[in-house]
Amino acid sequence: MANSIPSLDRLVDCFAALPGVGRKSASRFAYYVLDMKEEDVIAFADALSDARHNIHQCPVCHNLTDSETCCSICADEQRDQTTICVVENARDVNSIERTHEYHGLYHVLHGLISPMDGIGPEQLFIKDLLHRIADNDIKEVIMATNPTVEGESTAVYIGKLIKPFGVKVTRLATGVPVGGNLEYADDITLFKALEGRNEL
Amino acid sequence: MANSIPSLDRLVDCFAALPGVGRKSASRFAYYVLDMKEEDVIAFADALSDARHNIHQCPVCHNLTDSETCCSICADEQRDQTTICVVENARDVNSIERTHEYHGLYHVLHGLISPMDGIGPEQLFIKDLLHRIADNDIKEVIMATNPTVEGESTAVYIGKLIKPFGVKVTRLATGVPVGGNLEYADDITLFKALEGRNEL
Repeated sequence: MANSIPSLDRLVDCFAALPGVGRKSASRFAYYVLDMKEEDVIAFADALSDARHNIHQCPVCHNLTDSETCCSICADEQRDQTTICVVENARDVNSIERTHEYHGLYHVLHGLISPMDGIGPEQLFIKDLLHRIADNDIKEVIMATNPTVEGESTAVYIGKLIKPFGVKVTRLATGVPVGGNLEYADDITLFKALEGRNEL
Repeated sequence: MANSIPSLDRLVDCFAALPGVGRKSASRFAYYVLDMKEEDVIAFADALSDARHNIHQCPVCHNLTDSETCCSICADEQRDQTTICVVENARDVNSIERTHEYHGLYHVLHGLISPMDGIGPEQLFIKDLLHRIADNDIKEVIMATNPTVEGESTAVYIGKLIKPFGVKVTRLATGVPVGGNLEYADDITLFKALEGRNEL
């Protein structure tokens, strides 16, 4: 194209690499950046490299943190030290924190067992979880992986490993989502909702 | 929230400032950046500051460029030096270039006359356009602003200023878009399409 600007094309390429961003949105973002105040663009560039540089996994629960030692949840002595909630990734920690209903600790697996993608149990932080359970006075482990094939099988696999420690292992309830519509619920979800029905 | 990570929050804020990006997408982008290779993140940060720093307006047509003198289109002597296409912004230059049908020069207004937003003719590069027409042998000026109220009125306004130079002033055709459906075309578009009908 006659009107190609290398610095702009490079920026469009970077934006287009983000998940769910196509060439059109990427070029909209890039033109927006050109109109931004110079100090805001520098702050954006710094935020990018700072985040990548400062944020690392908590050595205890493998949640993401920028603190020097363990993450803010592990460091919080007010939290229930006898319960661990096992999740797939750090975003799931945030989702559960937003409910303000859970006050225990977390353990982030950073993936799910998925033989199709070549991910076995040894690539996840399962061994660390077993060590935590063995070394601490843990009473309950909540398996909060997604209700998908990979999530379910990972939960069952880890559950079997934990049972011998004499710890209660629970699983998130599956059913019709609040505000959902029975008409549009899929068969398996409805089946699970029926199966897990509670007395009123 | 117990699990807040300042460096991550800052990055999410930056992404959320982009047009059409909400908090959820912004946080998805931020977590994606944490998983990127360190050198890719540095390249992204550099692309941001480089683009903002290197790209400026061409002194002739006000298109965006990173070259030291005028933009690649103004510098290209193969192009038709007697036709100027007037557009609202630099993105429109790219849209027209993609047709491979236009081989003349451009003039970027960087906005449209819009009294509602407090934008008058003196804030656009209209004076520069008149100087270009006066100083060069221009035969045709194509008004390629959007077919909106602001676009139309800006085109009419500039057209009136140019006419005295004895230059042909044309306007992009309005009508039903290719692949469109008469059933879903709005009344004004259909009216314009009828009005501008061509002999087969």
